Amino acid sequence: MNVYRYEQNPLVTPSDVKPHRPDFEVIGAFNAGIAQYKDEVIMLLRVAERPVSEDPEIVKAPVFNVEKNELEILELQLSDERYDFEDPRVIRKAGSEQFVYLTSLSYLRIARSKDGREFTIDPEPFIYPSNDLETFGIEDPRITKIDDTYYIYYSAVSPAGVGESLVSTKDFKNVEHHGMIFAPENKDVLIFPEKVNGKYYALHRPVPKSTGAPEIWIAESPDILHWGNHKYLLGLRDGMWDDGRIGGGAVPIKTEKGWLELYHGATKDNRYCMGAVLLDLNEPSKVIARSETPILEPEADYEVNGFFGNVVFSCGALVEGDTVKMYYGVSDTSMACAELSLSEILASLTEV
Amino acid sequence: MNVYRYEQNPLVTPSDVKPHRPDFEVIGAFNAGIAQYKDEVIMLLRVAERPVSEDPEIVKAPVFNVEKNELEILELQLSDERYDFEDPRVIRKAGSEQFVYLTSLSYLRIARSKDGREFTIDPEPFIYPSNDLETFGIEDPRITKIDDTYYIYYSAVSPAGVGESLVSTKDFKNVEHHGMIFAPENKDVLIFPEKVNGKYYALHRPVPKSTGAPEIWIAESPDILHWGNHKYLLGLRDGMWDDGRIGGGAVPIKTEKGWLELYHGATKDNRYCMGAVLLDLNEPSKVIARSETPILEPEADYEVNGFFGNVVFSCGALVEGDTVKMYYGVSDTSMACAELSLSEILASLTEV
Repeated sequence: MNVYRYEQNPLVTPSDVKPHRPDFEVIGAFNAGIAQYKDEVIMLLRVAERPVSEDPEIVKAPVFNVEKNELEILELQLSDERYDFEDPRVIRKAGSEQFVYLTSLSYLRIARSKDGREFTIDPEPFIYPSNDLETFGIEDPRITKIDDTYYIYYSAVSPAGVGESLVSTKDFKNVEHHGMIFAPENKDVLIFPEKVNGKYYALHRPVPKSTGAPEIWIAESPDILHWGNHKYLLGLRDGMWDDGRIGGGAVPIKTEKGWLELYHGATKDNRYCMGAVLLDLNEPSKVIARSETPILEPEADYEVNGFFGNVVFSCGALVEGDTVKMYYGVSDTSMACAELSLSEILASLTEV
Repeated sequence: MNVYRYEQNPLVTPSDVKPHRPDFEVIGAFNAGIAQYKDEVIMLLRVAERPVSEDPEIVKAPVFNVEKNELEILELQLSDERYDFEDPRVIRKAGSEQFVYLTSLSYLRIARSKDGREFTIDPEPFIYPSNDLETFGIEDPRITKIDDTYYIYYSAVSPAGVGESLVSTKDFKNVEHHGMIFAPENKDVLIFPEKVNGKYYALHRPVPKSTGAPEIWIAESPDILHWGNHKYLLGLRDGMWDDGRIGGGAVPIKTEKGWLELYHGATKDNRYCMGAVLLDLNEPSKVIARSETPILEPEADYEVNGFFGNVVFSCGALVEGDTVKMYYGVSDTSMACAELSLSEILASLTEV
């Protein structure tokens, strides 16, 4: 696979982003949703910020208080044995796999570019936690344009669980909120850019507890707001690059051969790569072909090292002719872009 | 709380049900959905059957094979250290909280009664596993009548997860399948019997993995088939009878004071009781009042002892005037019924 990484990579880093509060520091500007809006490439960044901590013995956890409409900063002692601080991203209850706090608050912020390489970051957050399902933050947006509306959906994180909420905008200024469209636990929703046989389709990635794995499902909708007829679509593959968890990445790309989905797969030890799967054009719940090996894997320094290293994670791509401009988060830290050939990706897939 | 348990309890037991195959035995006839159909009370039983095992060292696991359209019986050695056989209901991977097989196959079967006490059981299954999301069985149905249609929904269990699927019937003979309406992990869906402010509502009970607990959510739908605007509704209460897991029970009952939902709550050590919660009549996502103590708890011998003891678990009730005839599964084994006073339940609730 020929991969052309932009010379400007990483395109946006935490140091490019001014924190939204003086007592916070930006630790991530990554996993951005991508859209073409007028003559601009919009990068809808997930910005992760954390309260600056002077005391290395204290871990601070930001929580949005809905009633007060403000952020509260909890302070936890690193020595407190009720908690497990091993994962830098989350604070777990000791002895549990569940997290009880996050170490940072994520929200969505716009970066704009004329050439898709040099980005200017908006001075203020674009979408900020605003309800009781977002008290731990909002993450990993995707953007699907249908007619003149941009549908933006993201993971909403709260003590009640992680689900997927939807907002829409026509101008990247005014936003309409549509609530949570996929209940916990769910992430990595991708709404198809047009109806197929009279129905909207979406990929989604539940994380079931009692049995099952983080795998990709597909659902149908009459109106983008309500979803049903859930079907199991794509599973993990033992011993391969995607044997730990998978999830949709970019909005499905319509090709003559089918819907091409660029998805992420991680190994059991959390090395995240990008691969592709081809779905039937008229019946997207049918899988036609799939990547045996990744189309992109963490190799560049900025992909290997960072807050959570060895991660390439795309939430959006632009297609121009045969060129796929795949934007992707690197190491839960920054944004990068690589160009790949659409026909080469399609030719690389193995029929299933 | 005055509780009148029928003298005929348990109304249906496993020994009343003829297994659907000669090599199987019925171990449960419980957690039935309830409907009034013409002059009959319909009890839509969850029947659990397991392959008879002559060898105490062998555990058999039934799995429905979709391609062959037949049940396959896997045989596992009790000494096989890859598995954990401690829970009689499931076979877990050793060292994991996830199950990989069930020890029985559940399907749905009709029992009919003129007086609501003496039931005759249909000779054949009514709804049987039929697709790749039901290979481990179907469980715990609920029935909501809207106009002349009975909507029947149940937990569909497969290696991909446990979700909620929907079928409908007008005559309890012909069935239309509508696919899975709540993706894994989800159980205990309850569809309201009429629209509220132009929308259908349902309670549901996700089981999130990374954070969150088995708690009750509410969703909206334009058509019963597709669901959105998910909201967190009702949580666990530390140190109380419902501090382990909760889930909706009977179809919400419309009263002057609000929608009355009879729900089950279990302690952390799996003692299942029934309680009640009152939701706003015009805005069912608002909780008005809730049971401090259960309205029914396992006390009778058939409620305390059985395949999985100390469980009362209602999936349906009939209301006549002030009388609530609450049908309920006991100890994952049999069916019982108790009459309670609607006004007494309402008066017992504590405002929240």
